[in-house]
Parts: sequence; structure tokens; C-alpha cells
Amino acid sequence: MHRLDSLLDLLIHDLRDLYSAERQIVDALPKMAQAATSTDLREAFNHHLEQTRGHVQRLDQIFADLGMDPDGQECEGMKGLIAEGETIIKTDGNGAVKDAALISAAQRVEHYEMAGYGTVRAYAEELDYDNVADLLQKTLDEEGKTDKKLTDLADGGLLRSGINEEAMAHQR
Amino acid sequence: MHRLDSLLDLLIHDLRDLYSAERQIVDALPKMAQAATSTDLREAFNHHLEQTRGHVQRLDQIFADLGMDPDGQECEGMKGLIAEGETIIKTDGNGAVKDAALISAAQRVEHYEMAGYGTVRAYAEELDYDNVADLLQKTLDEEGKTDKKLTDLADGGLLRSGINEEAMAHQR
Repeated sequence: MHRLDSLLDLLIHDLRDLYSAERQIVDALPKMAQAATSTDLREAFNHHLEQTRGHVQRLDQIFADLGMDPDGQECEGMKGLIAEGETIIKTDGNGAVKDAALISAAQRVEHYEMAGYGTVRAYAEELDYDNVADLLQKTLDEEGKTDKKLTDLADGGLLRSGINEEAMAHQR
Repeated sequence: MHRLDSLLDLLIHDLRDLYSAERQIVDALPKMAQAATSTDLREAFNHHLEQTRGHVQRLDQIFADLGMDPDGQECEGMKGLIAEGETIIKTDGNGAVKDAALISAAQRVEHYEMAGYGTVRAYAEELDYDNVADLLQKTLDEEGKTDKKLTDLADGGLLRSGINEEAMAHQR
């Protein structure tokens, strides 16, 4: 890892971490969508895939503005989170229960990103990089909405028959 | 991974994941505390270590109530998050900037736990395991407070001279 001598060093480090994370998510989401039983959940994953491609583009723009290279760092945290999702995809069981498990794995991913984007937005604000902070806030808002959407799907608010309720009915 | 045939299967799976996560955090926090330059941050990590030991005990109690074994599963997600923290500990740089980086890594850990406990609390509620849900809510509240405390430390709200401000002063 490069030295951390300044807040700018840390901003660049955390942005590269998120760049690697977003690209790993772009690769993982089609597999999550394919594994989903619920049509609503599959659509939510596919919609988030499009959003995530936009997040990568925003980061590309930020790195271009800062005159820095986005590559060269692997996000270890996201690697572990995606490994958890892949384990669930391979596991046998009831479709609705597996959907709930996919949501659980996806919400861990969203929370990683909310923590990450909240932090880099704060650094950018401290450094008076207002345009960078605004772009990061947009992505942060979208991650928050995705997390909320996944909670609604798990609670059954957006599904005709709630995923968790189905899972419970199966168990009884 | 065991089959996921019912919501109870998923609850047990996610509780074992959190049990492994909490135990990894108990091992990691003393190293994070030792690496912190700020006394307030060191105290925050040490305080959270005590809390985390309590979270392990709560999970032990929940597994005993459910008549299940807490062991036998490794949390891959937390492994990756802790690897990120260890990389920061080993990195050279300015003390205040490294403190900000430690906070950034710790907040990713807190967000993992908030996502995880939010999910298992919802499952426990669906299954009418009210006592389990209450215990999980207590831990969830503590993780939320720790995350807020770390944000306050980064913003300088609780420090005489804010960590991020120091990092910025160093950079100019």
C-alpha cells in the first residue's frame, strides 16, 4: 500500500478501493439476478447493475478530474462479501428462502458501499473538492435507495406474497 | 453450506456468520487500538472491544436458547474487511491520516454488522422469536452508536483538533 501522508492520499486510496469494489459488483450482479427466483428481486438486481455501471463511470470521471489512475488496487472486503453471495447461489434449498439469503448478502454489499462513499464524500468536502463530493453523494443516495428497496422486498412490501412470509410458510 | 429449506435454516446460517464475524473482531480490535495515534480513538476501539465481547455472549445465549451449535462457519466477508484494516496498520504515513484510515476500515466493519443484525432481527421477528429479536436489537443499537461515534471522531466533534482537519493541515 502507498504511504498515507495526507488526506488526499487517503481519498485516492479509498476511491481506488471503491473502484475495485464497484467493478467486482458489476461482475457479480448478473449471477445474483440469475439465481433469484422472484421476478421482482431479479429486476431489482438488474436495475442495480445498470446503476453500478453508472457508479464506475462517475469514479472514472473523478479520477480523470484528479489526474489520477483508478486501477492497481484490489478491494479485499468486497472480495469476501461477493464470496458469501456465491456460496448462497451454490446452496440447495427453497427458492423463497434462497431469495431472502441473496437479499441478505446484497445488503451487506450495499452497507459496505454506504460506509465507503460516506467516508470519501467527507474527505472530499474537507478538501473543498465540491464537484467530487457532489458526484459521490449521488452514488451514496442510490446505494441507500437500493438498500431500502431490498428491505422492502424482504418485508414483502413490494411483493404480492412476501419473500420472508413464503419462507416461513414453507417452514411450518 | 447447509441446505436453506426454511427461514429457520437461514436464521441459523446468518447467526453463525455473525458469530464468526464477532470473534474475528474481538481478535482484531486490540491491534486497531494499538495502531491508533489519537487517545480518543484508542479508547473508542477498547470500549467497542468490551461491547463486542458482550455481543458474542448474547449470541452464545441465543444459540443455547435455540439448542444449536454456534460454531462451524467462517465469515468470509469479515475476513476481507479485517484484512483491509491490517493493511492500514502496516502502512507508513502521518498518524492523523492513518487514524482516519482506521476509522474508515472500522466503519466498514460496523456497517457489515448493522446489515447482518438488521437481517437476523427481521427473521427472528417473522418467526415470532421475540426474545431472540430483542437481544439482536440491543446489539444492533450498539453497532449503530459505535458507527456514529466513529463519524464524530472523524468529523472532529469529539476531538480537540479533528482528525480530518489535522490530516488536511498536514497536506497543505
